Amino acid sequence: MSGLYDEMSASKIMREIFSDRAQVQGMLDFEAALARAEADAGVIPQEAATPIAAQCRAKRFDLERLAQEGAQTGNIAVPLVAALVDLVARNDPAASRFVNFGATSQDAVDTGLVLQLQKALDSFDADLGRLCEVLAELVRRHRRTVLLGRLWLQPTVPVTFGFKAAGWLSALVRDRERLRALRARTLVVQFGGAGGTLAPLGSKGLEVAMHLAQGLKLGLPDVPWHAARDRIAEVGAAIGLVAGSLGKMARDISLMTQAEVAEASEHIAPGRGTASNGLHKRNPIGVGAILAVAARVPGLVGTLFSAMPQEHERGLGGWQAEWDSLPEICLLTSGALARAIEVVQALEVDPTRMRANIDATGGVILGEVVALALVRHLGSPQAHAIVERACRQAVDTKTSLRDVLETERDVTNKLTFAELDELCDPGEHLGLAEAFGERVLAEHARIAGNGQH
Amino acid sequence: MSGLYDEMSASKIMREIFSDRAQVQGMLDFEAALARAEADAGVIPQEAATPIAAQCRAKRFDLERLAQEGAQTGNIAVPLVAALVDLVARNDPAASRFVNFGATSQDAVDTGLVLQLQKALDSFDADLGRLCEVLAELVRRHRRTVLLGRLWLQPTVPVTFGFKAAGWLSALVRDRERLRALRARTLVVQFGGAGGTLAPLGSKGLEVAMHLAQGLKLGLPDVPWHAARDRIAEVGAAIGLVAGSLGKMARDISLMTQAEVAEASEHIAPGRGTASNGLHKRNPIGVGAILAVAARVPGLVGTLFSAMPQEHERGLGGWQAEWDSLPEICLLTSGALARAIEVVQALEVDPTRMRANIDATGGVILGEVVALALVRHLGSPQAHAIVERACRQAVDTKTSLRDVLETERDVTNKLTFAELDELCDPGEHLGLAEAFGERVLAEHARIAGNGQH
Amino acid sequence: MSGLYDEMSASKIMREIFSDRAQVQGMLDFEAALARAEADAGVIPQEAATPIAAQCRAKRFDLERLAQEGAQTGNIAVPLVAALVDLVARNDPAASRFVNFGATSQDAVDTGLVLQLQKALDSFDADLGRLCEVLAELVRRHRRTVLLGRLWLQPTVPVTFGFKAAGWLSALVRDRERLRALRARTLVVQFGGAGGTLAPLGSKGLEVAMHLAQGLKLGLPDVPWHAARDRIAEVGAAIGLVAGSLGKMARDISLMTQAEVAEASEHIAPGRGTASNGLHKRNPIGVGAILAVAARVPGLVGTLFSAMPQEHERGLGGWQAEWDSLPEICLLTSGALARAIEVVQALEVDPTRMRANIDATGGVILGEVVALALVRHLGSPQAHAIVERACRQAVDTKTSLRDVLETERDVTNKLTFAELDELCDPGEHLGLAEAFGERVLAEHARIAGNGQH
Amino acid sequence: MSGLYDEMSASKIMREIFSDRAQVQGMLDFEAALARAEADAGVIPQEAATPIAAQCRAKRFDLERLAQEGAQTGNIAVPLVAALVDLVARNDPAASRFVNFGATSQDAVDTGLVLQLQKALDSFDADLGRLCEVLAELVRRHRRTVLLGRLWLQPTVPVTFGFKAAGWLSALVRDRERLRALRARTLVVQFGGAGGTLAPLGSKGLEVAMHLAQGLKLGLPDVPWHAARDRIAEVGAAIGLVAGSLGKMARDISLMTQAEVAEASEHIAPGRGTASNGLHKRNPIGVGAILAVAARVPGLVGTLFSAMPQEHERGLGGWQAEWDSLPEICLLTSGALARAIEVVQALEVDPTRMRANIDATGGVILGEVVALALVRHLGSPQAHAIVERACRQAVDTKTSLRDVLETERDVTNKLTFAELDELCDPGEHLGLAEAFGERVLAEHARIAGNGQH
Repeated sequence: MSGLYDEMSASKIMREIFSDRAQVQGMLDFEAALARAEADAGVIPQEAATPIAAQCRAKRFDLERLAQEGAQTGNIAVPLVAALVDLVARNDPAASRFVNFGATSQDAVDTGLVLQLQKALDSFDADLGRLCEVLAELVRRHRRTVLLGRLWLQPTVPVTFGFKAAGWLSALVRDRERLRALRARTLVVQFGGAGGTLAPLGSKGLEVAMHLAQGLKLGLPDVPWHAARDRIAEVGAAIGLVAGSLGKMARDISLMTQAEVAEASEHIAPGRGTASNGLHKRNPIGVGAILAVAARVPGLVGTLFSAMPQEHERGLGGWQAEWDSLPEICLLTSGALARAIEVVQALEVDPTRMRANIDATGGVILGEVVALALVRHLGSPQAHAIVERACRQAVDTKTSLRDVLETERDVTNKLTFAELDELCDPGEHLGLAEAFGERVLAEHARIAGNGQH
Repeated sequence: MSGLYDEMSASKIMREIFSDRAQVQGMLDFEAALARAEADAGVIPQEAATPIAAQCRAKRFDLERLAQEGAQTGNIAVPLVAALVDLVARNDPAASRFVNFGATSQDAVDTGLVLQLQKALDSFDADLGRLCEVLAELVRRHRRTVLLGRLWLQPTVPVTFGFKAAGWLSALVRDRERLRALRARTLVVQFGGAGGTLAPLGSKGLEVAMHLAQGLKLGLPDVPWHAARDRIAEVGAAIGLVAGSLGKMARDISLMTQAEVAEASEHIAPGRGTASNGLHKRNPIGVGAILAVAARVPGLVGTLFSAMPQEHERGLGGWQAEWDSLPEICLLTSGALARAIEVVQALEVDPTRMRANIDATGGVILGEVVALALVRHLGSPQAHAIVERACRQAVDTKTSLRDVLETERDVTNKLTFAELDELCDPGEHLGLAEAFGERVLAEHARIAGNGQH
Repeated sequence: MSGLYDEMSASKIMREIFSDRAQVQGMLDFEAALARAEADAGVIPQEAATPIAAQCRAKRFDLERLAQEGAQTGNIAVPLVAALVDLVARNDPAASRFVNFGATSQDAVDTGLVLQLQKALDSFDADLGRLCEVLAELVRRHRRTVLLGRLWLQPTVPVTFGFKAAGWLSALVRDRERLRALRARTLVVQFGGAGGTLAPLGSKGLEVAMHLAQGLKLGLPDVPWHAARDRIAEVGAAIGLVAGSLGKMARDISLMTQAEVAEASEHIAPGRGTASNGLHKRNPIGVGAILAVAARVPGLVGTLFSAMPQEHERGLGGWQAEWDSLPEICLLTSGALARAIEVVQALEVDPTRMRANIDATGGVILGEVVALALVRHLGSPQAHAIVERACRQAVDTKTSLRDVLETERDVTNKLTFAELDELCDPGEHLGLAEAFGERVLAEHARIAGNGQH
Repeated sequence: MSGLYDEMSASKIMREIFSDRAQVQGMLDFEAALARAEADAGVIPQEAATPIAAQCRAKRFDLERLAQEGAQTGNIAVPLVAALVDLVARNDPAASRFVNFGATSQDAVDTGLVLQLQKALDSFDADLGRLCEVLAELVRRHRRTVLLGRLWLQPTVPVTFGFKAAGWLSALVRDRERLRALRARTLVVQFGGAGGTLAPLGSKGLEVAMHLAQGLKLGLPDVPWHAARDRIAEVGAAIGLVAGSLGKMARDISLMTQAEVAEASEHIAPGRGTASNGLHKRNPIGVGAILAVAARVPGLVGTLFSAMPQEHERGLGGWQAEWDSLPEICLLTSGALARAIEVVQALEVDPTRMRANIDATGGVILGEVVALALVRHLGSPQAHAIVERACRQAVDTKTSLRDVLETERDVTNKLTFAELDELCDPGEHLGLAEAFGERVLAEHARIAGNGQH
């Protein structure tokens, strides 16, 4: 809740979407659309809608007072509706009686939240699109940049940096697709009145609900969902996947920026990333912030799931537990996404060092490749025994497998030096690294081309 | 991990799907399909595939030894592949060299898990279908069974029991839809070899991968996903939503079975649900078990999200953290689902008591309805003042709002007794309860009709 | 993060303790104490300490700018120290060189947090003391107020309301004790410099550290704990236990306030707790807020545990994940505690209804008691068979067990009516309800008497 | 729940403590001790106790049947007590009536769990003692082994490996202390009967409870705690801290074992740690397993906290959610601890490489040290400017700061070559690394000397 961390934790646009004022505006948008829908359906007088809608501007309301009264009444919508009634009544007492007609406080709170989520999903889609594009550029640029593959933090066969970036991109493309796929199911109006039955609207309930949904460009659910919170948890989880995918990328980059690895580093703008005692730092500030988000969001997602078993028609405690939790998931993940775009866009990649790190293994990562080549000539047991011994010697003597093999009679009897060179060249053993990258780029292009809705 | 709780925590079929033997069989199915795919693609000799596939039967392996060796090697696939090589070699040493050719241990572990998940998703779809159908029956049967609506555990306007059940059904229909929607994205083969590039297969990698996927009836992902675990977390979260939706239903039923409410009770089979000191118990055993699952699954879902930032090409720690977590989510939720079917199928509903609980409120829950009716005659302030006073009196004197209003001159001057009766009859103020139920039933029918794939 | 919920989510004093300004002041208190300690140890000139300390006032700093620069540098302490240097330099350039001498940004951030926690723990102790006292009053007042015991939400043997309140009190007394017990272990200074070795201070490191700790009235740990975060997680967990214990009490009260139970209700101040459409609500606003906290805190506690495996001398991501998480645990729990005091203090308890709820069970909850009495006369099988039959009849005919037994020849042959009366009087079967209450009160008194430090 | 992972996930002794049979034995120990306590207090006939106690042996019970019946009755104790009654009745029908007299199923389940926890805490203390001792040995052995300090994964000032190990040890010593401190508060008997009041025991309740507690060597709580679960969550959290502290150590070691860092490696027993395609692996199997535990335990701890708000005298759902969760925390953490002992005991440390990694930084990590030395001669701005430039040059030209400084006239005018050597020698700038290590060793010795109880 510390304001000192807002700047570093959330994107600017998301802070606006979830600002106090925007939250109130979301509820007021519901009230305005409701008045219009009810007037259109003839539930309230046509002349009441305009004066009500005219007052539905957040800046006319005293947020501090709403906060204080909300603490007494149990939620913000109760004092907000009361204040709206007062505002409308100043000019048009008759109209004021039709404020929030037939609706309940949770209708305003939940629909307001859905309107905020709609904007949040738009923002995520745009930012994911931006990030995917800069990652796609990395995939293309480094399609043949040889890089040491790492398994359980140990060297394994060579890959390319483009392939690695394709792995990051692939997950984010799926994340983007998920966030689109859930819009139809989750961006729906909440409108049921006290018990969810819309009883006060008599036979006009469904008509009003349809108009309301249309007015707000939201879907109309099969039934109000005051205490069925799967949509809320679903949205939180899908955004949580974004945080996790970003965390995976950040973890990789953080490891690549270690001084001993030095394959990549965050570009540090002047004046940034220098700690109090450091003359020489290129601190991975951005990936650190992303990793922090990836560590925080899972607990918040878990809270949304824990809070699902809400009581009867309207829950006590579980609903309230969502209020800050889902916005925080959005805010934190937006911050991680903004950071990720910055980091990837300006990432300094060092292909020379990537290659040097492979060479530093002595080439033993290609031992299996050599062994397979020898199997044809020597049979499996002897081939593997020779290579295993050669690998050990290469490691122990800090020379290369290639050089050791050159001294092995049994090897040079069967393989030429040129063959040995090829077998020991990491660039010759990249398998489908590039092809997989192409497949991911195609997925990215497909999603990017689809448009959002 | 206590075996004593297996029976009460998971469905029989899910325990089979995630049994030790089935887990090993999943990996062996991968090995068999891999050998066939590689033979078809000409990567390994055609005559090697059959002897390999012939040994891929879990019952031929010593599970205890696998467990012990797996603890040493870091995962089960390593000793499993070694044991498979030995088995194949007994009859066909030549073929044994092509076991797991080009693949890595995680390929077998992950694809094996996906095969288990495929069966788990089938089972969830079937069980959700069954539960939805018994809930649909409740919705239909109780479309007009009047029930007290409850907001923050306090009385609010009347609803119907069918409407309440429709709320449960609605969430579960969405949950079922989600579990279907993620199949295409998540039921994909894992196949990349040590670094994910399929280097050992040369130019044949993609062809083998396609054959493998076809052979296992799984999708082919754009790129191997050894360290991109969004699919795993996505599946866990979607199943977690089922657990949450079941928890919501169980919470409601548990509250309805309270002696003071007594609107519903679990049917207790003879010999069941009696505690050691109870002569008279009808304990809500089933809903208790469901609530326990709804409390446990969120933490496990959170673990899958926390574990997402896995290192480089293959993660250390995060991957291993998933091994038990996702199966436990499946097992627990399957148990909750099986319980839910039992509970709902045999739920004893007491419409008389439902009505009596409404009457016990003195009818003040319809105060707003009466007030609205009076507003037309008396104006809002006076109408509300009268009704508010009458409500207080009804509560204080433990009589009914209807009876108090009858004594109010200002009321009887404007409304006939018949009008009063209607205003105070909860069955006359159910709004869209039935219509919403129909909408949910239509959604259920739509999904049920779609078939799963 | 919504400011609209601050008022309802946290106590006023805790919001002050964790305000942006107080957070900055905590770090400045570290800087001032550090300058003094270093001057006393002769590490920096004696005349440098005063001008540094003189500027260590949060109100002299531009919080918004710190937030923005902190986002660039990775934490707030970096720009804060830079700003402090500037401020000091305006009057005393020589002194400015000794700001934060030998320390690192995390020293300031962590020690600042510990100073905030110290105040937070003071506040928790005081509030827990207050809550325990009002609960103790409930225990005393209701030591003989008979109440239906409830097992799995079903009726069981009678207890007293004082006994129930003693259960709440007992947990909170332990929670209070825990929060005291961890002070010595956790309220320790963080001071190690960049690598934790205090190298810049040469041989004076330990002396400075001791002076610093004394100056701040904090303990001196055996070794700096930049990346060993067990203390942070420990504090979070212990406060989380408070949230859980409050949640248990709130759960009980929420259930007791159901209209059908009506044994207790929150006293509602005028104008509070009325929902938009309700004329007649006594909504359990307070316990709802507490339950929300009990649902949110566990996820935050989990985050602190997840974040523990921090890298090397100073972690990347894990540390940052703590920054908001621990303050939020404090803030939320403080709000729940403040609400709990209000709720308990003003709780309206209805002993008549408590008794009526017992009577409504028909007295079958004492069936086992009657059976045991009959066993002496009739042997166990016959005694239990008679009572079981009588219980069923009492339930089915909505009469009482007492009345049914009166008609049973086998019973009246052995027991007089007076004996039957006594056996069926819930007030005669309260066991140790009162004695257990006394034991809890003694524990409360013991802790309350100990004082905090 | 997969048995395939038991071996790799939990210590052998902990698997025994939490085996199905041991769980049943825990409940039977309760039953036996209860019978004796009640006989001693004259509540049941003296001659009933022995035949009851004689049958309280887990091996006489059919675990599979208990599991099946428990699923029907809601917990294991119900069928266990029934089966015990049957067993006793075979020889002594009269005694069989006094089985579980006055107690409820939860009394047996909870006390049984506490007895298991008692053994688990003993085991943790012993294993923590062992681990602390091998860590202490590392601290002593490497008190002067120079190591690069790392901040946010970037190089910072030098430390020693002994200092790093002291940081690990320090946390584990505190963890051990915590696990001892909570014994008195948490290792208490559960005994209250159905409602917690021990009503069936009349005036003898407290006496029986005391005897029972003594008989089981457990504490007697102020009041039964059937629905006050703070102790359970406290134990889980304290063990969770162990998992976190181990995770921190494992994280560090995993990073040190990277090929590019190569400062330490797990000793690999023959045949272990080789992946299917690797000829040359020294996989960090042990630390991977520990990291997995550190990732899984937080979610389980969170579950215990979430489950705390349990209903009334005995909760529905929350209690059941604990059953597997706390044992899993114990099992997993025991496995991590056993692995940690193995890993640390056999850790291969490479001081030469540690020094080489420092040298590879070009010595710029001591730039601040040099700058401070120059400040005295040149004033701060010029000193820092020179050093900053020299650091950049050292990095850019891949030479050392020492060598660059040697060419700087402004430097060599003020400092001799010997002074420069000393300033640039990491071994000369270790500050309190050794002293802090001594402080930690003293803490370890203090705790180790205290004994456990």
